[in-house]
Amino acid sequence: MTAQGRLYGVGIGPGDPELLTVKATRVIAGAPVVAFFAKAGRRGNARAIVDCWLKPSHVELPLFYPMTNDSHFDDPPYREALAQFYKDCTSTIAAHLEAGRDVALLSEGDPLLYGSFMHLFIRLKDRFAISVVPGVSSICGAWGVAGAPMTWGDDALVVLPATLPLDELKRRLALADAAVIMKIGRNLARAKEALVAAGMADRAIYVERATMAGELVTPLAEKDGDAAPYFSLILAPGRGRRP
Amino acid sequence: MTAQGRLYGVGIGPGDPELLTVKATRVIAGAPVVAFFAKAGRRGNARAIVDCWLKPSHVELPLFYPMTNDSHFDDPPYREALAQFYKDCTSTIAAHLEAGRDVALLSEGDPLLYGSFMHLFIRLKDRFAISVVPGVSSICGAWGVAGAPMTWGDDALVVLPATLPLDELKRRLALADAAVIMKIGRNLARAKEALVAAGMADRAIYVERATMAGELVTPLAEKDGDAAPYFSLILAPGRGRRP
Repeated sequence: MTAQGRLYGVGIGPGDPELLTVKATRVIAGAPVVAFFAKAGRRGNARAIVDCWLKPSHVELPLFYPMTNDSHFDDPPYREALAQFYKDCTSTIAAHLEAGRDVALLSEGDPLLYGSFMHLFIRLKDRFAISVVPGVSSICGAWGVAGAPMTWGDDALVVLPATLPLDELKRRLALADAAVIMKIGRNLARAKEALVAAGMADRAIYVERATMAGELVTPLAEKDGDAAPYFSLILAPGRGRRP
Repeated sequence: MTAQGRLYGVGIGPGDPELLTVKATRVIAGAPVVAFFAKAGRRGNARAIVDCWLKPSHVELPLFYPMTNDSHFDDPPYREALAQFYKDCTSTIAAHLEAGRDVALLSEGDPLLYGSFMHLFIRLKDRFAISVVPGVSSICGAWGVAGAPMTWGDDALVVLPATLPLDELKRRLALADAAVIMKIGRNLARAKEALVAAGMADRAIYVERATMAGELVTPLAEKDGDAAPYFSLILAPGRGRRP
């Protein structure tokens, strides 16, 4: 009987291929199958990040999302399509693992912080051995390129998706010393309004495509317009004690 | 005139030497001077993590804290000693940079998340070129070894130092979907009480020395006693939407 393969959830960092960990590069090199999520018809950002770490011998397994992130999660057909998608991905990956092939499933940033990997992890963890290789999160990448020390002394850090309702954003920012607002996309205007209400707008920094080509870092006050790409977030650094 | 050296704040990850990024290993290899913080009389954990990445040609620059972390920050002599310490570190590093030598200043986890590097960064940034190399934070390392997916969908993540007063911990946990309590040390009993009040204790996970020798992962409910080392934290994973 063939020994089962192992699934690796591999954090590949915020975008710069040099920000993979040494362990991530070793795990990828040793895995016969490299899986990654991508929008339908696209190569996928994760795949692009690891390009220099792949070999011709790798079996590439793209997992194409059923729709773009224009679809809203509250829409039942979208939810069902996503559930079916994760079910299909689970079967595909399980087949490789059952055949004894290790699978490295790439995850931008860190695998367990808002990562699609988590949806496959919970579906596969009782059947297969899984290892998580932590990665440099996109938020660490962003404050690194911004040169923005985030948390001092007893500062509390709050990480919020901009997809939350305005009142929720305000309530939670009111108890934050330092804040990161993620998943900006079309929610920039709401995020700004919440930061103004929390008195954090003046020190907020807008970061787009951190550590990647096209990187942009600017005070939020100087960010033009309300359009923002998927790879953007806002940082409000803490101001805790500094001897 | 000699060109000035560059200061690198190098995140070295949570403890496993393989969790340095490829960039961190390259920057360390190329820097003639490697600086790191350590308790007086100790080798220092940062130095231990990078042991396999150092060469005999490296100039090692240990920066010894004036006291142990038993001292309390509200104690004025302690604050003054720390301020003097950071001033002295600044001078020492500035001398290397002025002589044209790049300095890699090691930072456990990520440099800009509760890192001592930040205190030197703000003192040196107007005089010298500084680059931050982001690292795998200790919190990503911890939930990775715990196999604990942390944030789902619109979950808000709150990162709190256990050094905060009990009421502050409670207030902030009440608005958290997912939480990390850091700097546990002697504050374990208070952290537990706050988690119970927030209804998070049942799903809380205690993690000690993640990715290092002596690693321990256990449900918080099964953690014996109220003693915890510096390298410990508590995770309360989010429970947001999962298609």
